[in-house]
Amino acid sequence: MSTSGPTARATKITPLSGFPEHLPQDRVVEQHFIDVIRSTFELHGFPGIETRAVEPVERLLGKGGDADKEIYAVSRLAGEPGERGDAELGLHFDLTVPFARYVVEHAGRLSFPFRRHQIQKVWRGERPQEGRFREFTQCDIDVVDVGELAPHFEAEVPLVMAEIFAALPVPPMVIQVNNRMIPEGFYRGLGIEDVAGTLRVVDKLDKIGPAKVAALLVDAGLTQEQADAVLRLAQIRTEDASFVEQVRALGVEHPVLDEGLAALRAVIETGMANAPGAMVADLRIARGLDYYTGTVYETQVVGHEDWGSFCSGGRYDTLATDGRTTYPGVGISIGLSRLLALLLREGLVTATRMSPAAVLVAVLDEESRPASVAVATALRSRGIACEVAPSAAKLGKQIRHAERRGIPFVWFVRAGEGGDQVKDIRSGEQVDADPLTWQCPPEDLRPRVVAAG
Amino acid sequence: MSTSGPTARATKITPLSGFPEHLPQDRVVEQHFIDVIRSTFELHGFPGIETRAVEPVERLLGKGGDADKEIYAVSRLAGEPGERGDAELGLHFDLTVPFARYVVEHAGRLSFPFRRHQIQKVWRGERPQEGRFREFTQCDIDVVDVGELAPHFEAEVPLVMAEIFAALPVPPMVIQVNNRMIPEGFYRGLGIEDVAGTLRVVDKLDKIGPAKVAALLVDAGLTQEQADAVLRLAQIRTEDASFVEQVRALGVEHPVLDEGLAALRAVIETGMANAPGAMVADLRIARGLDYYTGTVYETQVVGHEDWGSFCSGGRYDTLATDGRTTYPGVGISIGLSRLLALLLREGLVTATRMSPAAVLVAVLDEESRPASVAVATALRSRGIACEVAPSAAKLGKQIRHAERRGIPFVWFVRAGEGGDQVKDIRSGEQVDADPLTWQCPPEDLRPRVVAAG
Repeated sequence: MSTSGPTARATKITPLSGFPEHLPQDRVVEQHFIDVIRSTFELHGFPGIETRAVEPVERLLGKGGDADKEIYAVSRLAGEPGERGDAELGLHFDLTVPFARYVVEHAGRLSFPFRRHQIQKVWRGERPQEGRFREFTQCDIDVVDVGELAPHFEAEVPLVMAEIFAALPVPPMVIQVNNRMIPEGFYRGLGIEDVAGTLRVVDKLDKIGPAKVAALLVDAGLTQEQADAVLRLAQIRTEDASFVEQVRALGVEHPVLDEGLAALRAVIETGMANAPGAMVADLRIARGLDYYTGTVYETQVVGHEDWGSFCSGGRYDTLATDGRTTYPGVGISIGLSRLLALLLREGLVTATRMSPAAVLVAVLDEESRPASVAVATALRSRGIACEVAPSAAKLGKQIRHAERRGIPFVWFVRAGEGGDQVKDIRSGEQVDADPLTWQCPPEDLRPRVVAAG
Repeated sequence: MSTSGPTARATKITPLSGFPEHLPQDRVVEQHFIDVIRSTFELHGFPGIETRAVEPVERLLGKGGDADKEIYAVSRLAGEPGERGDAELGLHFDLTVPFARYVVEHAGRLSFPFRRHQIQKVWRGERPQEGRFREFTQCDIDVVDVGELAPHFEAEVPLVMAEIFAALPVPPMVIQVNNRMIPEGFYRGLGIEDVAGTLRVVDKLDKIGPAKVAALLVDAGLTQEQADAVLRLAQIRTEDASFVEQVRALGVEHPVLDEGLAALRAVIETGMANAPGAMVADLRIARGLDYYTGTVYETQVVGHEDWGSFCSGGRYDTLATDGRTTYPGVGISIGLSRLLALLLREGLVTATRMSPAAVLVAVLDEESRPASVAVATALRSRGIACEVAPSAAKLGKQIRHAERRGIPFVWFVRAGEGGDQVKDIRSGEQVDADPLTWQCPPEDLRPRVVAAG
C-alpha cells in the first residue's frame, strides 16, 4: 500500500558467480535425482538426518586439507563484536565434519553402529574467478561405530552408490577403490619417510603426468628407484583381486601393506559378487582430505574421466572423538550439483516437462470458475495433479498456457453433450471424460526424467 | 593414518543456541511433513525451485521491516577485503525476497503467471538470549504475474495450505485472512493520516491488549473516537462474509475500504465453498512485513493461539520489479521448524520408528554374511527396506539391534527345515518365509508419522 514505504525500488539484478540456480524444468531433474538417491539410501536402512549449516570456525579449520581457504564466515550484520554466546561461525564445507560432530554431541542418544544419510547444501568460498561452485548439494551415507568399525561396511557403502547409479539416467560410472594402507605400507617398505608428502605428489598424477610426478618425488628426496616404484604402484588398476599379485611382483614387503591389500581385496571381491563392473581397484586414488585412514573411493564417468570424481569418500578412524571415545566411520558422498551441471550442460539428461500438473482445467468464463475448481478438486482427490486456467481467455490461449508448461491434457468443463471432455494437446485427440473416473496415462501422471542427447 | 596430521584432536562440543538439530526419529516426522507439503504443492501444479542461500545485503536490507537487525552476513574467511566480484552477501531471512529477485532475474525464461513452491532453510540472526530459531525451514507457494495478478489466486493459495493441514497429523488450524485495504480505507475514511503507523500499533493487540493499544493510538495523535473505531474494526472476526455488514455498521466510508471488503469477501466465500471452516475473516491481521499490499494471512493452532502464526503470507504488488516491469504476487508460507518444534515438545506427533528398514537380516557367522546380503538384496528388489546385521553376534543381541531402531522384523537365513524364517519381534511370531515372496504388512513397510499424546 502506498503508505508502507518505498518497496517498489528498482534494484539491479546481479547473478552471483558460483551460486547456480535452476529453472523449474532442470529442478525437476535435480529433485528426481534426490528422490532416487534418498529412496535407495532408505532401502538400505540409512535414516536421514540434517545438521545445522554452521559450525564453529575452529572446528572447520584443520579438517579437510585446504579447507581454511574455503570457509565462509558468518556473523550477525547488526551484532556487536564479541557478543556473548556468539562463537565465530562458518558455513560447513562438507557433511562429514558436521556429522562427526553430531555423532559426538548426540552419542548418548544414538544406537551404534549408527548409519545415516544426509542430503544438504554445503558452501566453499572458492575464489570467484575459478568458476567453481560456492554452493552445492552433497548426498552422503556413513556408518560409525564405537571404538571399532567392522570392515564389511567398507564394501557396503560403495555398493549403495552403485545401485543409485544403475537407477539414474546417467552414463556408466565406475567407483575406484584404494586403501591408504597400501601406499603407506609400500612407501615404508621402500624406506620412504615422508608418506603424506609422497601421497600429495602422487595425487597430482592425473594433472601433471608420471614424468613430472617422478621429478617432483626426486626433488623431495626420493631416489630414482623409489620414485619409479611409487609410480608403478600408482599405475596398478584391476577389475578383480589380481592387483594383489601385481603389487607383490614389485617385491616390496611391509605388514601395513599386507593389511591394506587384504582389506582392499575384501572390498573388491564383495563388489564383484554383488555388482560386477561397478568397482575397480585403482592404487593411485589417495583423496586430498587428510582425515581418511583406510579405504578410499573416487568415482568417474566412463569416457569422461577428465570431469573428475562425482562420488568420493573413505574410512576415517579418528575424525570423531571426544578425547575418551573414538568413533571410527566410513562414508561416501555424491557431489550432486557438479554431476548434474555437467549432465545438463552436455544435454545428457532432461525432464519431460516443467509442471507437476498433468491437466490444465480450462475456464469458460470467470462466473463458471467454481465448476472448473470442482473438476480440479475431483482430479486431485484421485492423485492427478492439475492447475486451473489463470483466466477465462480464448481457448487457444489456455491451450498455449498448458503447452508452455508441458501440461499434456486440457480439460473442458461441460464441453460435450452435457458432459466434460479432455484433450491430449500433443495428439489433438479429445474425448468425453468424467473427473471421477478418467484414467491419466501412467507415463503422463508426473514429469519423468530421462537420458537425452 | 598416523602420518596425516593431528586429526584426532579432541574438541569440546558446544551446542549452538537457535540452531536446532533433530535426532533420527524426529527427522522422520519432519521429512514426512515435508513430503506431504511437497506432494500437495505438486498436486496443485506448483513446480519446485530453490534459490541460492545468499543475496546481496543491499537487497535484503529494507525488505521485511526489521530485517536489517536479523541478517547474517557471509564473507570468505581468507578473502581480501574488497575482493573483485565479491558483493557483500547475507543469508536470506525468508523465501519471498529471494523469489522476487529470481523472478526478475529469470523473467525472460519463465512463463507467467508463474507459480512455484520452495522448501528451504532460512536464517535470522536473532539475539541468542531470545531463544528463537536462527535456522529454520520454510515451505512457500507463490503465484506472480506480469503487471496484473488475477484476484482468484488470493483464495487459491490458502486453500492449498488448508488441504495440507487436513492431511497432516496436526491439531485443527484456522487461516485468518484480512485485506490491508480494509484498515487503510477505514483509517482514511476516519481522517487518520498515518496509516502505516496506526497499523503498527494495532499489530500489538495480541501482545498488549486493547486498552494499551487505544492509549498508544491517542498518544500518536488520534482522537479517542478514532482510536475506538480503529479498535472496533480490529475486533471483527467472522467465519462467513458477515464481516462486511459489521464494518458497514461502523459507518465509515472510503473507496479503498469498499475495494478491500469486496476482495476479502471473495476470498472468504471461495474458502467457504471449498474448505468450510478452514478460513476466517479476521480484521486485526496486519503482518509486520511491509511488502504486503492486499490480502494477508496468518494461521493459528486452535486452542493454542498464544503459539503465534505458523502459516502466513499475503499479496505484494511491488516487491518484484526491474524498474520497467512489475510482477505482483501472492504467497503463503508454512514455518515448518517452529510448528514441528511445538508439536514435538508437546508430544502431539511421533514417528512409529527411526529406521527406514522394515527387516533386519540376521547373520549367523561372518562366513555366511554373503547369504544374508543376498536375502537383503532380494527384499530390496521388492521395495522392502532392510539392513544386514552389523555383526554375527548372539541372536538376542541382533534382535536388540532391531528393537532399538524400531525395525519390526528379523530375518533368519536357513533357520527352518532348509529354509528361511522371519520373526515379528513385537509379537514373537516366527514363520517360514521366502525373500522373493514374503509380504511385509503395508503398515510396517516404512515408518509412519501419527498424532500422539
